[in-house]
Amino acid sequence: MRSNGEEGILTGAKRVVYFATGNKGKYAEAAEVAEVFGIRLEQLKFNKLEIQSSKLEDIASYAARHASGVTRRAVVAEDAGLFIDALEGFPGPYSSYVYTTLGWGGILRLMEQAKRRRAHFQAVVAYSSPGNQVRCFSGIVNGTISRKARGKGGFGFDPIFIPLGSRETFAELSVTEKNRFSHRSKAFMKFFRWLMSHGG
Amino acid sequence: MRSNGEEGILTGAKRVVYFATGNKGKYAEAAEVAEVFGIRLEQLKFNKLEIQSSKLEDIASYAARHASGVTRRAVVAEDAGLFIDALEGFPGPYSSYVYTTLGWGGILRLMEQAKRRRAHFQAVVAYSSPGNQVRCFSGIVNGTISRKARGKGGFGFDPIFIPLGSRETFAELSVTEKNRFSHRSKAFMKFFRWLMSHGG
Repeated sequence: MRSNGEEGILTGAKRVVYFATGNKGKYAEAAEVAEVFGIRLEQLKFNKLEIQSSKLEDIASYAARHASGVTRRAVVAEDAGLFIDALEGFPGPYSSYVYTTLGWGGILRLMEQAKRRRAHFQAVVAYSSPGNQVRCFSGIVNGTISRKARGKGGFGFDPIFIPLGSRETFAELSVTEKNRFSHRSKAFMKFFRWLMSHGG
Repeated sequence: MRSNGEEGILTGAKRVVYFATGNKGKYAEAAEVAEVFGIRLEQLKFNKLEIQSSKLEDIASYAARHASGVTRRAVVAEDAGLFIDALEGFPGPYSSYVYTTLGWGGILRLMEQAKRRRAHFQAVVAYSSPGNQVRCFSGIVNGTISRKARGKGGFGFDPIFIPLGSRETFAELSVTEKNRFSHRSKAFMKFFRWLMSHGG
């Protein structure tokens, strides 16, 4: 079994995986999961190419394929979103744009009258290595939209999302606590598990 | 001067331009403008590739380049959005997604308390012919967001947008009237003018 650039690089005992993201919060979360698997996750600060699609899988795959094509490395890319039932899935794949324009204040305004407060976060991790097919791994966390914003941790819509099984919002939890629930950690766990068994 | 596929096709007296869009409303508006220039606009029903960007120009250029690359024809693509000052430009380039999830009802809810109601529509038309650089043409119409939705014409956010100089919303105007103001007609007019002088 080969252990060259195609399936992550082995340096001494530690495998290195490149994560194409400009988001420090995402990187911190994923790096903590990687640690558990004895994998070193390197942030690849790369101008990620994102397409418009209602499917996270399409967006993450396209980004991973593009990044690995340009850098000629095995690269992982991720896309995530908050999908709110009462808003037909909004903000979904455009969560980051909606966050920078409306913020969570806008979401709370849109949800003011809404009794149905169910929502879920989804993350899709796409892994692309030169010459191979892209593989996707998905993680979901169900929860509800809070009435008020609470907490200072995390990023994005974390202050208004209460994961099922918790009384606190994502922003009130530490990274380690959040990772017990989080969509992103679930997706990365699936990916790392696959990588370990696949790459030897 | 050549008059082959590269700069639109001349059939008899009429030049043909391919417009890559799945949106009938957009096609109808642009076709009416084309008519004035004696240009025949053909709808190219093409699965347009849209990237995520805060700049309409990037989105339209990428789509046009991709469509002309695949079809090997001179193709025009367009991207447009409604930019609301009080919402930091939201919904902007994601207007179509926001329309299908929140509708204009969501925008009115977000704007309920807003005194500052200024907004503008912008359209960018990108023209790509095989082997040539992409050219962009932009059109803007300023206006305000109405307090209530009015009118049944147009599409998207037309019922809540009142162009400067009108008392009626875009949806209360006929296609011909809307084209007197519209961002899209301005952008297409610039493009057709350029095409006529450039292509002979």
